Amino acid sequence: KMLGRVLCTVLFVGAFPSPAEASQGHISVVLLGATGDLAKKYLWQGLFQLYMDQVSSGHSFTFHGAALAALEPGQRLMFDVLKKLSCPPDEAPNRCAVLKDQFLKLSQYHQLKTAENYTALNREIEALLRQEGLKEAGRIFYFSVPPFAYTEIARHINGSCRPPAGAWLRVVLEKPFGHDLASAQQLAAELAGFFREEEMYRVDHYLGKQAVAHILPFRDQNRQFLDPIWNQHHVERVEVVLKETVDAKGRTSFYEQYGVIRDVLQNHLTEALMFLIMELPANVSSAQEVVQHKLQAFRSLWGLERSSAVLGQYQAYDSQVQEELQEAQACVSTTPTFAGVLIRSDSLRWEGVPFLLTSGKALDERVGYARVLFKNRAYCTQSGTLRDAGHSQCKPKQIIFYFGHGALNTPAVLVSRNLFQPVMPKDSWKEAEAQSDLHVFGQPLSDFYMYSPVKERDAYSVLISNIYHGRKDFFITTENLLASWAFWTPLLDSTSRQPPRLYPGGVENQHLLDFEMVSGGVAFTLAEPAELLNPSGQMPSDFRAIQSKFRQSPLVSAWAEDLISQLASDMEEAAVRSVARSGQFHLALSGGSSPVVLFQRLARHHYSFPWQHTHVWLVDERCVPLTDSESNFLGLHRHLLQRVRVPYFNIHPMPVHLNRRLCVEEDRGAELYAKDIVALVANASFDLVLLGVGTDGHTASLFPRSENGLEGAPTVVLTESPVKPHQRMSLSLPLINRARQVFVLVLGKGKHDITTLLSRVGHEPRKWPISGVSPSSGQLVWYMDYEALLG
Amino acid sequence: KMLGRVLCTVLFVGAFPSPAEASQGHISVVLLGATGDLAKKYLWQGLFQLYMDQVSSGHSFTFHGAALAALEPGQRLMFDVLKKLSCPPDEAPNRCAVLKDQFLKLSQYHQLKTAENYTALNREIEALLRQEGLKEAGRIFYFSVPPFAYTEIARHINGSCRPPAGAWLRVVLEKPFGHDLASAQQLAAELAGFFREEEMYRVDHYLGKQAVAHILPFRDQNRQFLDPIWNQHHVERVEVVLKETVDAKGRTSFYEQYGVIRDVLQNHLTEALMFLIMELPANVSSAQEVVQHKLQAFRSLWGLERSSAVLGQYQAYDSQVQEELQEAQACVSTTPTFAGVLIRSDSLRWEGVPFLLTSGKALDERVGYARVLFKNRAYCTQSGTLRDAGHSQCKPKQIIFYFGHGALNTPAVLVSRNLFQPVMPKDSWKEAEAQSDLHVFGQPLSDFYMYSPVKERDAYSVLISNIYHGRKDFFITTENLLASWAFWTPLLDSTSRQPPRLYPGGVENQHLLDFEMVSGGVAFTLAEPAELLNPSGQMPSDFRAIQSKFRQSPLVSAWAEDLISQLASDMEEAAVRSVARSGQFHLALSGGSSPVVLFQRLARHHYSFPWQHTHVWLVDERCVPLTDSESNFLGLHRHLLQRVRVPYFNIHPMPVHLNRRLCVEEDRGAELYAKDIVALVANASFDLVLLGVGTDGHTASLFPRSENGLEGAPTVVLTESPVKPHQRMSLSLPLINRARQVFVLVLGKGKHDITTLLSRVGHEPRKWPISGVSPSSGQLVWYMDYEALLG
Repeated sequence: KMLGRVLCTVLFVGAFPSPAEASQGHISVVLLGATGDLAKKYLWQGLFQLYMDQVSSGHSFTFHGAALAALEPGQRLMFDVLKKLSCPPDEAPNRCAVLKDQFLKLSQYHQLKTAENYTALNREIEALLRQEGLKEAGRIFYFSVPPFAYTEIARHINGSCRPPAGAWLRVVLEKPFGHDLASAQQLAAELAGFFREEEMYRVDHYLGKQAVAHILPFRDQNRQFLDPIWNQHHVERVEVVLKETVDAKGRTSFYEQYGVIRDVLQNHLTEALMFLIMELPANVSSAQEVVQHKLQAFRSLWGLERSSAVLGQYQAYDSQVQEELQEAQACVSTTPTFAGVLIRSDSLRWEGVPFLLTSGKALDERVGYARVLFKNRAYCTQSGTLRDAGHSQCKPKQIIFYFGHGALNTPAVLVSRNLFQPVMPKDSWKEAEAQSDLHVFGQPLSDFYMYSPVKERDAYSVLISNIYHGRKDFFITTENLLASWAFWTPLLDSTSRQPPRLYPGGVENQHLLDFEMVSGGVAFTLAEPAELLNPSGQMPSDFRAIQSKFRQSPLVSAWAEDLISQLASDMEEAAVRSVARSGQFHLALSGGSSPVVLFQRLARHHYSFPWQHTHVWLVDERCVPLTDSESNFLGLHRHLLQRVRVPYFNIHPMPVHLNRRLCVEEDRGAELYAKDIVALVANASFDLVLLGVGTDGHTASLFPRSENGLEGAPTVVLTESPVKPHQRMSLSLPLINRARQVFVLVLGKGKHDITTLLSRVGHEPRKWPISGVSPSSGQLVWYMDYEALLG
Repeated sequence: KMLGRVLCTVLFVGAFPSPAEASQGHISVVLLGATGDLAKKYLWQGLFQLYMDQVSSGHSFTFHGAALAALEPGQRLMFDVLKKLSCPPDEAPNRCAVLKDQFLKLSQYHQLKTAENYTALNREIEALLRQEGLKEAGRIFYFSVPPFAYTEIARHINGSCRPPAGAWLRVVLEKPFGHDLASAQQLAAELAGFFREEEMYRVDHYLGKQAVAHILPFRDQNRQFLDPIWNQHHVERVEVVLKETVDAKGRTSFYEQYGVIRDVLQNHLTEALMFLIMELPANVSSAQEVVQHKLQAFRSLWGLERSSAVLGQYQAYDSQVQEELQEAQACVSTTPTFAGVLIRSDSLRWEGVPFLLTSGKALDERVGYARVLFKNRAYCTQSGTLRDAGHSQCKPKQIIFYFGHGALNTPAVLVSRNLFQPVMPKDSWKEAEAQSDLHVFGQPLSDFYMYSPVKERDAYSVLISNIYHGRKDFFITTENLLASWAFWTPLLDSTSRQPPRLYPGGVENQHLLDFEMVSGGVAFTLAEPAELLNPSGQMPSDFRAIQSKFRQSPLVSAWAEDLISQLASDMEEAAVRSVARSGQFHLALSGGSSPVVLFQRLARHHYSFPWQHTHVWLVDERCVPLTDSESNFLGLHRHLLQRVRVPYFNIHPMPVHLNRRLCVEEDRGAELYAKDIVALVANASFDLVLLGVGTDGHTASLFPRSENGLEGAPTVVLTESPVKPHQRMSLSLPLINRARQVFVLVLGKGKHDITTLLSRVGHEPRKWPISGVSPSSGQLVWYMDYEALLG
């Protein structure tokens, strides 16, 4: 009833749209968690701003704060917040005071705890609308609550609070959206049971920061300048950085579960990066085009490995956790509070360009930015001392989207004057006067064209306005969210055991957190200072490969990632030795999934591998066209051959597709391959054969009880696989056994049983073909990860 | 007789080695051009230094100055020079005075004009040796004379002045050694008629400069630091620079024939560059190893094109030439006095690293250096203002071999402190104290480890000492010389028509000579300022391709280089259009020599070519293995496919080598290729076919009066060529004529006759197969260079 009265009053004073003007309908905004921190700090102010901006839009509004607290105390708490709402400086004080008064009257507190509470809320909204003769436009439910409460609230809203047909529902969700891929998928699946994708507005408040929100429009409006230079040939690196001076004190119960990667990198910094590196959609305000291009950009990224990141933790963190969580002293937190991550793309546009994402707490300054640094492609003939400022092509060239804080203390867009003068929308960005004494990124501010917002707006105001306008391009879709978690989860998994480097905090960090790109990953520049060493911590370099024996042959064992890197190094060493000896390296490779990571590692980390002198042969092949997704060769091509420079003539796919048909005996493909081997490989002795092992003990495409290839001549054979595609071509065991070196790679828990069995049996190739691998004069080495070896 | 007396006197005073000590034998040094500028300025002083250094070596010496002047005036001139010889500051004045006196007594002037003069000189040397009972160790003939005199002098020396068996002959030659490849070859061939390779010491005095001479030893002694970083992954660029403030005034008669490239880049800067980029020999003082590695480095360089260089001429040059050479006013010199050249290597080590060579007269400062700038691979978490000096990994990292002059005014080796502290030989290089106020290359000197020579030595002293020691690694071998000319001559040829940019000289040049790397070449950063425009000069951008008609089809014509660049752009455009339309681009390419430059241009300049979606087919092939040097595919692979990313499956060599035999009818290779085309190319209609034309009017491998392929079915045929290898495989004319586009490339004077003929004849494929090219529904375009079109 109170609401009805309020509405009447408002209509009476005339600042509220007349019924004719209000023909756009009524919008009910429900803020769940109305008395929480975020609501206090940003959300109510954002809703008030929305009301001020849209009071004449033709929509009428009511604002419903909700929480678990009972009506009486809840009301009191909420109105304490509302009374403190401030008027923006550019608003006429009189108008603002009137509007604030109206806003307070349009706002109401509800206890939302039980199913009945939700039904009651719905009834109240309906009654009000009926009473005032208003058409309903839509309802906004803003979830400013902990994620564990999401599902239940969602169920209630879906069950009791949906608006009638013709009006929209928008639910606004705040992170965290899970803490890894699996939990995010689960949460997404649950929410999908209650809401349609277009009803959900997942907030990443960075997308509301003015400098972040302007990245795509900037790229769009400056296409003419950027088109020729927005690529690997011109860009030296991209940095996306959020540095904080505060630490996690008082928030460790949250922080301890998340850490800096989940808190900042997976969402805020990744989103800013995507805006920079995605292909530019024709229409940058089409949410659908943007998300499609963003997903494509995600697909082009290299997978993250442990070596992709450096992690740190400020020294006081551990004691803060123990204090706040009352944990036992012995328990040492490995939650990182600092991370530097190297991301790479293999798109044509960005191949070779490092993307560096960095964030941390307890650093020397508070600042956030996304920075594109261009290569210096000039030679300046005049000596340095004579060069004038700003325009010299030999000065650094960069474009910076400055999120705020730091030396500039304002959001800004900066473009080096020796690049171009950018096109900026005059209504929202103004050219800033240069404070000539300021230096940013190593240059005086006068070297840049600098723009700052005409009107500085808080991210939440921007986002709430975009929710109102249904601008979904400012929010994170489910696909986008899952793509980001799929990208970050492997790194979170592989670093979960890794103790971070301790740092003192603030300016005393000095160079301790500087890091460098080294062989495909990153590493801290300075060695670990002894006095800061985490006493219980094992450093990454201690994860050494263990050497022993398996079936009387050398065994190399380690966690999978270390094992692969050891194997890749050993392969390079074998290649270099072989090329030095004979000028060539004949390498026979197996297909399947295990070697994929190996192939990627070889392609990305082994710059000195003598590919020009390497011949690549197949150990076995499925009888499918080479371009079929089942083809071993296709996988090898995609993950390795496409990325390195093996001469065309040195690539030897198996001829399973002669005369445009597959493995027909009379086409004599196996014979042809054998002849090629004899013609090119001295003594038909490969320099290195890489094998895998199946759970049934098969190797190459030699299966238990195979009629061909287990004994007899060193040749190439057609075989039958128990699984599809059945027809295979394979090197025979006797041919494999002529090799100088045979490496067998065994990865994963699934291989533990066969490994255990193999450790006990003798030479029984008819039962377990792999047991017949025993190079007559060469060397056999087993590479097994701990999971395969130890289960 | 005089010499005899001198020698006795010297022996008498005892500073000369006693006969026992002199058992190493006697060395006669003959300086031809003894009264010339170079001799006055450097050579006599160098010989005196040699004498001071080696007076106790066990060798005895006599010094013979020679020139065309008669005895009397020649003697006077020469002794005027000798009297001015100075004692080095580190030599005890007493000893030096005695030694200078001795040196004067051991020196003698000879007129060397006629054959008799040479015979007389030889007799005198022999007589002296006999008289003093000295064994002859060897003779040094130093040619400080203009190159036109070389041959005659060489003939006389070879004819009359060779030492007896057991003693060596060393002839020292001063540049210029020719002015292009042909003249250098001719001069080399002439000299080879008189001297053995090991007898010739070609001087490039840069090899005697201490900082240049130390490049290889530095790389050798610092292998541990350099091995991991001396490659494309760490080096951003290499600069070799010689800037002069003087101009060519007074020397224009020489300079006008040579210009800056021949004067400085072809020799001095190239040699310094080679020391930096060559693979490091195991033994850096083995002349043979060094030259072999240097030659290998030359082979890895991309050929220079017109776009590889920017050229300038200081404004006063032209009037200086007219004054000094009394040339007609109308004649405008295009001799460059400034050049910036971009050199690239496709070695694994250096691929992608730009080497910039720059030199010029009338610039703002006098300085020379070779500088290796490393990439910044670090991210420095601490903000810039807090970083301490020197060691931050985010500061530039560089190694500089400072030849001399400039801000440092001494030869020096500088290594950034954030790189490593280099190993330097303590007897010859000392650590220099930092003058903290000095900045070099944008950094305070305190950011570097800096070393300067313990004893500064003039280049000629160093070289003369090395001649004495037979250290051939300090000199230019014939192979080396010719490799350098072979590298530079194409650029000299292609820029000979190009008017250089005029520049005012000195500091007023401002940014006028700054240049940038753009699409594989370099270009001045600033547009040509109108007021400096050479009124008669045509700018490179004016060399536009001319469009008209040939045989009723569009004709594009230009100078060869412009034509190729137009053709490459048109091909990229066709590719992009085709991929946009159908997702694929089917390109059929011809072999032979004409397309090589095109292939290189496509590989180097067309980053956006959609290779991932391109299928490459062959128009024709010779029946040889694909790896045979005659194979069209091999050429295509070497110049194009190896450098771009065409997927393996999209590369379609002709199957001329089935079942390990060549083009046997029953292997049905032609049929197989036709089937592949039908299977993959929609409607068997290639998107683009590139053809050439033979002087006999053949195209593809379709020769006049061929029995196959000129008519009939659109298929693939085996044909016979009138020249070896006779057997060929070729697309047939009807198949070619199904293409959407056919481009015919015709290059060179040699094609002028057939071009003229083709412009007159009709459709007569049996006489001239090319006349049968007429796409049924596609487009034919002729690309002819001016030489082919106009003769």
